[in-house]
Amino acid sequence: MRVSELGEFGLIDKLAGLIDKKGNKKAGSWQNLLVPIGDDAAAWKSRSGTELITTDILVEDIHFDFSYTGWRDLGWKSIAINISDIYAMGGKPQYALVSLALPGSHRVSDVLAMYEGMIEICNKYGITLAGGNISASKKVVVNVTLTGVAGKDIMTRSAARPGDLIAVFGHPGLSAAGLKALTSRKKINEADMKVLRDAHLHPAPGLDSGPRLAACGVKAAIDTSDGLLSDLGHICEASCAGAVIYEQNLPVHRLLRKYFNQEYLELILTGGEDYQLLFTALPETMDAVIKAMKPAPAVIGEIISGQPGTITVLDARGKKLAFNRQGWDHYKRPSGHG
Amino acid sequence: MRVSELGEFGLIDKLAGLIDKKGNKKAGSWQNLLVPIGDDAAAWKSRSGTELITTDILVEDIHFDFSYTGWRDLGWKSIAINISDIYAMGGKPQYALVSLALPGSHRVSDVLAMYEGMIEICNKYGITLAGGNISASKKVVVNVTLTGVAGKDIMTRSAARPGDLIAVFGHPGLSAAGLKALTSRKKINEADMKVLRDAHLHPAPGLDSGPRLAACGVKAAIDTSDGLLSDLGHICEASCAGAVIYEQNLPVHRLLRKYFNQEYLELILTGGEDYQLLFTALPETMDAVIKAMKPAPAVIGEIISGQPGTITVLDARGKKLAFNRQGWDHYKRPSGHG
Repeated sequence: MRVSELGEFGLIDKLAGLIDKKGNKKAGSWQNLLVPIGDDAAAWKSRSGTELITTDILVEDIHFDFSYTGWRDLGWKSIAINISDIYAMGGKPQYALVSLALPGSHRVSDVLAMYEGMIEICNKYGITLAGGNISASKKVVVNVTLTGVAGKDIMTRSAARPGDLIAVFGHPGLSAAGLKALTSRKKINEADMKVLRDAHLHPAPGLDSGPRLAACGVKAAIDTSDGLLSDLGHICEASCAGAVIYEQNLPVHRLLRKYFNQEYLELILTGGEDYQLLFTALPETMDAVIKAMKPAPAVIGEIISGQPGTITVLDARGKKLAFNRQGWDHYKRPSGHG
Repeated sequence: MRVSELGEFGLIDKLAGLIDKKGNKKAGSWQNLLVPIGDDAAAWKSRSGTELITTDILVEDIHFDFSYTGWRDLGWKSIAINISDIYAMGGKPQYALVSLALPGSHRVSDVLAMYEGMIEICNKYGITLAGGNISASKKVVVNVTLTGVAGKDIMTRSAARPGDLIAVFGHPGLSAAGLKALTSRKKINEADMKVLRDAHLHPAPGLDSGPRLAACGVKAAIDTSDGLLSDLGHICEASCAGAVIYEQNLPVHRLLRKYFNQEYLELILTGGEDYQLLFTALPETMDAVIKAMKPAPAVIGEIISGQPGTITVLDARGKKLAFNRQGWDHYKRPSGHG
């Protein structure tokens, strides 16, 4: 079988099985591990609470394209996509390490612009850029590792329970719309283009949103990186639950209606790379979150018991929309909705 | 200026300057940082002692080639090259995260063989494989991040002092000889080929060598990844010192003499990727190390005051060999010795 047939998530499942079978759980540090492989970040107990670590890669011509991505944007985004993973566990990011591989023909000034973008976002989110390495390659590859710390109670993908409400920060689909705007000839005015461009190239997870959700008592969260239905699906699978989403509750950004009126619902449900938090909580906890956090998240549905991972999207009349759970799998491209 | 003109280490210097200039040192976590950017691993104070983290990347057709590298070897090596970085700081490795990017056309069984190689080395060195991510790319990219823990006293590149003896574990140059054996048509018998192949594809840092050196009181260390002279040069520069190496004290593996008699000295001094520890220590500390550790390291020279980073190699008659400090810079290839 080929990797493209099994898919990203199938491969991760097989890896988890291998770790078990080959006895890696006998490693002394295993006993302190708090989540199995497959959550947003690895987490283990320490004397000060919980240590978190996550890593994510951006590969030229796969994850980004220099025809529309500036070097400074690349630096910003490479860190941003890891911040949302630390936030999704309820942690505060601390130290970043950068593995950079690139052809020697690039200009030093471009590479320094990339590091400036990294330092800019590190400064904003209180992160120390602590090290890394640089080597040669034919395409630019940026791999960022980010550590974080959390208290004893972290958020995980597996803690959603039937009766929880589901909420999301930001505007799902706006980053995917930004990518479409950047790569199409759609006529878009300058001010709107900036908003769309920033949504895709300059994602900004709500500052401290992770630790603040955890402090409110939220137990289950994920970042919106693969697409709303896909990410919610990860929560539902890990939590052995289903979910229902109400179309009329979805937050629709005005630019999605203005420029993507034919496809805005698909963008919201399946567009990836928003890097905001999606979470579930008991109604009273949700009330506390909505009071505490501005801008407040949109409550878009609820967790139900049912076939694990199954998500139903209902329109205003209670009619089931024919959306499958789809989003970003690095090997299985979304095939659209039926 | 192009990256290839500035070189890997020039770029790291510029990055360090940028971090300073752009105010990243104001991040709350900065105050706990124990080493500046550019050591083997990032290190910061924690309640339990010192936290360490390092990250390193292997890119297909740059760092390895599938014509001579098996998938299982690739998995082993991707972790090994990080273990030696944690050991170089005196730490014990704990958790590994793997960022894998590869084309979907690869066989799942090959990728699982790679993970088996990772798990094998993780089991041997007491490391938990804790997470990571998988995504698409045109070439295989494996980035491993490894955490570690150390006591209050870590080893650094900057702690060498004039009067310290210099010692190295293993057989410098054997990995580079292995690469030559794998990629040339040199006639080598099967048993010897296995030794050479393993030196390059299956590097095995001495188990617990880092924490044991630190326990003996060693303060300055680095792993031999760029080549003996280059790595010793990093220590000398960071420590503002010079060094003298005695040719007759260099450990020469019998296969270097047997198959590489014309070039064995060049291989020993400039060949990279051995992933063993090179360190300096006061004579009495060195005695303690030699008594405590088997196989013992070879004492090859001493740290002297002088032009920072300058290394002199003397032959048995005290004649200066015309070796420049050379080794692996990802953008500046060694130009050979004059």
